[in-house]
Amino acid sequence: MTTTDTTTGVDDSIRNGVDTATLFATLDAVKQAPEAASFQFRAHNQWVSGTHNRSRIADYFGVGQERTHERSFVFDADHPAVLVGQDHGPTPVEFVLHALAACLTAGLANIAAARKVKLTEVRSTVTGDIDLNGILGLDPEVRNGYQQITVRFTITGDAPADKLRELLDQSRARSAVYDVITNGVPVTIQVDTP
Amino acid sequence: MTTTDTTTGVDDSIRNGVDTATLFATLDAVKQAPEAASFQFRAHNQWVSGTHNRSRIADYFGVGQERTHERSFVFDADHPAVLVGQDHGPTPVEFVLHALAACLTAGLANIAAARKVKLTEVRSTVTGDIDLNGILGLDPEVRNGYQQITVRFTITGDAPADKLRELLDQSRARSAVYDVITNGVPVTIQVDTP
Repeated sequence: MTTTDTTTGVDDSIRNGVDTATLFATLDAVKQAPEAASFQFRAHNQWVSGTHNRSRIADYFGVGQERTHERSFVFDADHPAVLVGQDHGPTPVEFVLHALAACLTAGLANIAAARKVKLTEVRSTVTGDIDLNGILGLDPEVRNGYQQITVRFTITGDAPADKLRELLDQSRARSAVYDVITNGVPVTIQVDTP
Repeated sequence: MTTTDTTTGVDDSIRNGVDTATLFATLDAVKQAPEAASFQFRAHNQWVSGTHNRSRIADYFGVGQERTHERSFVFDADHPAVLVGQDHGPTPVEFVLHALAACLTAGLANIAAARKVKLTEVRSTVTGDIDLNGILGLDPEVRNGYQQITVRFTITGDAPADKLRELLDQSRARSAVYDVITNGVPVTIQVDTP
């Protein structure tokens, strides 16, 4: 349902750039047909040279059919020189930090819009601490991945600080990437060596 | 140590685009000074509108000092229209798949180089299955994140299929992103609401 504020003439179903009418309509549609919510996302990667490789993100499956993004997105990953690469892109582990910030922020904007809070600014810095003695195979006591990740948000909007924190808590509670990173996911690796 | 093949005149310490002499020198240096391997990676994210936000990856800490990549890397994330976004970038969860492919592939190239295997092609497709009834809050039994992730590699090189699989197994065993995704990492979220 789209409602218009008769005082301002502004369509108040758009808040924080979120079309809340469409958001609620989508929720209703999935309630009626839960199988529409089965998605498969994909990345296609090709090795370039050394630690440099490139992924293309374009096709996915959702709402019952194969789909493509409006354009293909291409991302290079590499190591910096200090890690014996050529710095053609961020390291793989840095993309994980971006994914986490992006997921929490998108959720926050949606949840704020649904609860009629207008956000003015959302910034975050994600830091991940890692001891490379793990991946270098030099210390069996050290894990390969991050030991800890910290996200520091600055949020401003037309609600009290407590309310803004509550919106972020709810975003965390519904974040796909936060769940993946904190709880883990089973990964299967297959290899074809023609 | 750099060695030159006297038959071909080619510096055989560069293999798969990996400078193996530097790789081994780096390993030796970290053996002598394990604290050099303490790194902190970072992503700085800014909300744009709706589910659209943007991260900058530039600064990090490693080998005892603050460092920056040779340039800043900027990535947009968004949702497609079918998920009430404007498709200005991949979804956050798709960046996770890219990170996994990139990490396994970079490791494979390094390990193959160290073991004197010349790779000719490495391609992979990573798929992640997710039921959005989780993040939409419509089914408490459904997790927010991926239910499973599958990586399918095609690898060719101058070694038998068994050897190529063994190199990939070793890359998995030393992959930071594989560890993060399969085993999870503690995440702390702080919020400043001025």
